[in-house]
Amino acid sequence: MAQISASIVGASGYSGAELMRILSRHENVKMHKLFANTSAGKRVDGVFPVFRSFIGSTFESYSAEAVCSSDVVIIALPSGEAMHIVPELLHRGKRIIDLGGDFRFRDPAVYQKFYKREHKAAEILQKAVYGLPEWNRADIRSASLISNPGCYPTSAILPLAPLLKEGLIRPEGIVVNSLSGVSGAGRSSSSDLSFVEVNESVKAYKVGEHQHTPEIRQTLQMISKKDVSLTFVPHLLPITRGIYTSMYAVVSGKVSEQDVVGTFDKYYKNAMFVRYSSSAIPEIKNVNFTNYIDIGFRLHPENNQLIVLSTIDNLIKGAAGQAVQNMNIMFGFEETEGLL
Amino acid sequence: MAQISASIVGASGYSGAELMRILSRHENVKMHKLFANTSAGKRVDGVFPVFRSFIGSTFESYSAEAVCSSDVVIIALPSGEAMHIVPELLHRGKRIIDLGGDFRFRDPAVYQKFYKREHKAAEILQKAVYGLPEWNRADIRSASLISNPGCYPTSAILPLAPLLKEGLIRPEGIVVNSLSGVSGAGRSSSSDLSFVEVNESVKAYKVGEHQHTPEIRQTLQMISKKDVSLTFVPHLLPITRGIYTSMYAVVSGKVSEQDVVGTFDKYYKNAMFVRYSSSAIPEIKNVNFTNYIDIGFRLHPENNQLIVLSTIDNLIKGAAGQAVQNMNIMFGFEETEGLL
Amino acid sequence: MAQISASIVGASGYSGAELMRILSRHENVKMHKLFANTSAGKRVDGVFPVFRSFIGSTFESYSAEAVCSSDVVIIALPSGEAMHIVPELLHRGKRIIDLGGDFRFRDPAVYQKFYKREHKAAEILQKAVYGLPEWNRADIRSASLISNPGCYPTSAILPLAPLLKEGLIRPEGIVVNSLSGVSGAGRSSSSDLSFVEVNESVKAYKVGEHQHTPEIRQTLQMISKKDVSLTFVPHLLPITRGIYTSMYAVVSGKVSEQDVVGTFDKYYKNAMFVRYSSSAIPEIKNVNFTNYIDIGFRLHPENNQLIVLSTIDNLIKGAAGQAVQNMNIMFGFEETEGLL
Amino acid sequence: MAQISASIVGASGYSGAELMRILSRHENVKMHKLFANTSAGKRVDGVFPVFRSFIGSTFESYSAEAVCSSDVVIIALPSGEAMHIVPELLHRGKRIIDLGGDFRFRDPAVYQKFYKREHKAAEILQKAVYGLPEWNRADIRSASLISNPGCYPTSAILPLAPLLKEGLIRPEGIVVNSLSGVSGAGRSSSSDLSFVEVNESVKAYKVGEHQHTPEIRQTLQMISKKDVSLTFVPHLLPITRGIYTSMYAVVSGKVSEQDVVGTFDKYYKNAMFVRYSSSAIPEIKNVNFTNYIDIGFRLHPENNQLIVLSTIDNLIKGAAGQAVQNMNIMFGFEETEGLL
Repeated sequence: MAQISASIVGASGYSGAELMRILSRHENVKMHKLFANTSAGKRVDGVFPVFRSFIGSTFESYSAEAVCSSDVVIIALPSGEAMHIVPELLHRGKRIIDLGGDFRFRDPAVYQKFYKREHKAAEILQKAVYGLPEWNRADIRSASLISNPGCYPTSAILPLAPLLKEGLIRPEGIVVNSLSGVSGAGRSSSSDLSFVEVNESVKAYKVGEHQHTPEIRQTLQMISKKDVSLTFVPHLLPITRGIYTSMYAVVSGKVSEQDVVGTFDKYYKNAMFVRYSSSAIPEIKNVNFTNYIDIGFRLHPENNQLIVLSTIDNLIKGAAGQAVQNMNIMFGFEETEGLL
Repeated sequence: MAQISASIVGASGYSGAELMRILSRHENVKMHKLFANTSAGKRVDGVFPVFRSFIGSTFESYSAEAVCSSDVVIIALPSGEAMHIVPELLHRGKRIIDLGGDFRFRDPAVYQKFYKREHKAAEILQKAVYGLPEWNRADIRSASLISNPGCYPTSAILPLAPLLKEGLIRPEGIVVNSLSGVSGAGRSSSSDLSFVEVNESVKAYKVGEHQHTPEIRQTLQMISKKDVSLTFVPHLLPITRGIYTSMYAVVSGKVSEQDVVGTFDKYYKNAMFVRYSSSAIPEIKNVNFTNYIDIGFRLHPENNQLIVLSTIDNLIKGAAGQAVQNMNIMFGFEETEGLL
Repeated sequence: MAQISASIVGASGYSGAELMRILSRHENVKMHKLFANTSAGKRVDGVFPVFRSFIGSTFESYSAEAVCSSDVVIIALPSGEAMHIVPELLHRGKRIIDLGGDFRFRDPAVYQKFYKREHKAAEILQKAVYGLPEWNRADIRSASLISNPGCYPTSAILPLAPLLKEGLIRPEGIVVNSLSGVSGAGRSSSSDLSFVEVNESVKAYKVGEHQHTPEIRQTLQMISKKDVSLTFVPHLLPITRGIYTSMYAVVSGKVSEQDVVGTFDKYYKNAMFVRYSSSAIPEIKNVNFTNYIDIGFRLHPENNQLIVLSTIDNLIKGAAGQAVQNMNIMFGFEETEGLL
Repeated sequence: MAQISASIVGASGYSGAELMRILSRHENVKMHKLFANTSAGKRVDGVFPVFRSFIGSTFESYSAEAVCSSDVVIIALPSGEAMHIVPELLHRGKRIIDLGGDFRFRDPAVYQKFYKREHKAAEILQKAVYGLPEWNRADIRSASLISNPGCYPTSAILPLAPLLKEGLIRPEGIVVNSLSGVSGAGRSSSSDLSFVEVNESVKAYKVGEHQHTPEIRQTLQMISKKDVSLTFVPHLLPITRGIYTSMYAVVSGKVSEQDVVGTFDKYYKNAMFVRYSSSAIPEIKNVNFTNYIDIGFRLHPENNQLIVLSTIDNLIKGAAGQAVQNMNIMFGFEETEGLL
């Protein structure tokens, strides 16, 4: 099959590095430009020695012109930056996958409230397709602009969406308790993320006010057509990669284990990257360095509760891997190409 | 002030080591016998080199006779073992603090259901005082047998009890999501607890069926006089010490930040080891190696939710430290002696 | 190219798992039997859930008969076990790669001294080819029995061998100070390797008497034709994977940076998995999950010292990866197949 | 005994925090001023929540005047800053303990070479007493200015000094291979010290050119009266605290285990914080959070080598603890006060 040309904007962050790693062994992709303003002029394998004898390229400063021969542009910039470059790239006819938060909301007011800045490309929001392949495969195929889901939302939406849609759980009062490795915060020099501050500790942060809360809620509502209320609390853990999400919901009436498995079967039986089980309890180590989400659950009839547990690698299924999965769908490649 | 003589049964585990560390610098205590059957005959500082030039004693095999000149016996055995020795010790007139789970329930049937074994000293259950000093100080003072609270229950009961008792939160549907360091599992050679299996991972375990669930529930019910339903899920983290508990409850009517702080003030204003705040979010590193519990919270009126966060050192406030706090109360010492 | 059939004996350890991971994506290999006595009858993805939806096989009890249709048998048993099964496998005409220490020495007395047991297949020792591809490629190609190098020896021999052979460093008084992640100790339930014992600590072990000392020495002597004396001290670190080896040698006369690089060029210019540099200092994270060895160095003329630093992933270049590299050479595949 | 008043300059770093922790429970010390320019005006327990309900003070901007009623000033600033304030403090008659590197060398040219800056108070260098209590107790007692040893030097000098002085090892070609936890680099926002960069990795740094090399050498030479040559390589480890130093030296003639122990006995029999053994191998976890140095060793007569291993807590015996030990000696307190 013919190869496409892909460029990465913001290639020197952790998601950027993961994208380079995946794309460098992707049979249908030729990596074209690797943009990274702060590292412009530096060799990729100088910044990431892990790529020595693999990737011989040099980071460049971003310019829209330089992208022109790329078929797809993958943006791995911090949230708030993509909205400044996406309009021109769309205008030039590029297909785009944005890993940041800029194009995840339909409503610019929600963006402004949670990201604390005005949206500068609000007119494009309606064009963006939320890149959750297990639910939006058809729209992804033809999309010009994919908004790749956030890491926490991926871990919460995939397990909850079918349960809500099928009415197994009640849409109000859902608790989403998430734990994340430090790479989820990006490549940062914040002293809060220094080894000594993070090691041998745990803390919750942005309690109930994290920008992923409305993203989870909006998506669950769109899928289930129900008014969903949820509380989301992320915690920072002393591990490098991985998200672990524990969800608590009230069941609607009598629900059996088989009902839950049957619901997952209905939506995910053929999903290549969703693994679920009525017995196994997920563990981060089983998904790290993969594009899988592992889902487990336990029913507690005495409390009318369903506990659902999920885990993903935040840099892969939660970022770069899902982006490539989206790209594979957009260009008609095997959905798993580069991801196994 | 005169010194008492204290013996430890099960001194070679992690809680035992912590007890030895605390008691070796306690002004009112002389460590008497250190029992540890599997290490009997070995020097303490051979098993724990950290104690070299500190503790010169040798572990001994347990016998009730050998204890006879001790004023207090602290038992740090795995659950299921204390019930075999407590009756005789009580009969000999010893005052006892048991760190395990054998004397925490009033009802032997609950014990049997969750600890999967028959209770062999059920007749004593009614005598045991639950050693949560912030709530039972008066009973502790005169108790013969203290049942020291579990680590998870300590982290959950202290924050939730006043809120329930004062009616700020509803007693049903409470979610208790806990994270624990590995020392909570005791000194073990289980391959599940090996470095490679635990490091860079997270897993939930005993989901909804952990033996601390009924302990939390029973205690909250006794304090609040309400029928409480809760879901408790513990998770194992790659850290050595520390518990982080995130609790989710529905508020009863309109509740303000000041209501919450005022409620904590009412019960804990003079509690030496309870620190709470309406702004600061707890972090494990702020309590590790201390006997403190740190409590924080956030209100989410749009969801009628109160999120409460707490953290303790599982080996200190969750085990050895709380035991010494109880001992200090029993013998009329300063409650903080040995613990600051 | 046609596929060969490969079986693994001892597949349920960490090296075994790594072999399964590599072979499952190797284009020229079909995994045949997966032997693991203690896990016999269990599904591979039950023991290693990371393989769910990847490897559907079941572990079996070992028998020589069951292997008969395999072209190659890779043995990942603890040292001391392979010598009981290799003679029969050789007799049946199988080609074998043994990851353990049983066939690394020419002299059974050295084996007995360092492995503390008698060698049961001493007559085969002369047939074994030491599987260090960068030095023994020709012999590996035609070998029936490959003895895969130890992890520490791989990290020390590759940097030191060319320097000794070319006479840049003196053969006596070499110091080899190594640090290893815990997976190097194998999949164990020893309480010494529990998370709590290992975390936030470091210890040297088998100081100067580790069984890899004579392996390093024998190989360096065979390559350099010099009488080598060295001191080797391994240390256990709280990381899962990776070896970091710091070597100290006295230079022979005047040696320049260019002399060192030139020597590495002479032997490793075309070595696919050896990366060296006169500037970059190796870091474990640059080689983990790869088959590379990274080598760096610094000259200290004022002390006549050359400091050489190297790092490998102990489970890959130090075990499973190097085994597959050997297999690729034995069967005429691309040397890098399955390893990039 | 009467209390003295102590101020800390640079109190908001990791060594500063450790000093506050130790001094807050020191019976003979009243903490006076806590200077920390970047945190001036902030409460101590805001910056370090671990001190909540312990230390109620507020950080202040430094001024020499504000110090005037303090009996001792402990400086925990980054190297290069103390030399700007020490002259005036001495002039005002204060006794000073400096934890940084500014006053460790007799020769300002050595300082300039290794610290890459000119010394601004060279005239004071001769007045400074190197604060290694086990060797300089008498001078420390009467000193005005103590230069507290570096963390790596403490770990290397204490084991090597008696061996060199007694002629058990040869003074040339000594190898000092050290491993350090991340807190040794200070409280920093460098991205090199972020959790993700450090975790699950190891790297050597400043190979053979670290500023502690001449400090170790100068001190060993002063003690042994011999010309010492050594190679020192520090490595950064993913642990918070602790230094592990492995030293390799050639023995002078025939040396027995008893010779080594006897030599340590001669100098350290009454040293409160030096623990040594001919059998036990040091482990970081045995000294962390203590002021001890643990020393072990192995003789290898076949290579004429003595391997010596030591470990300290870099923030305590390697910094704040040793400073307080010095202070105790200066003011005639029990040497162990505040440190057990």
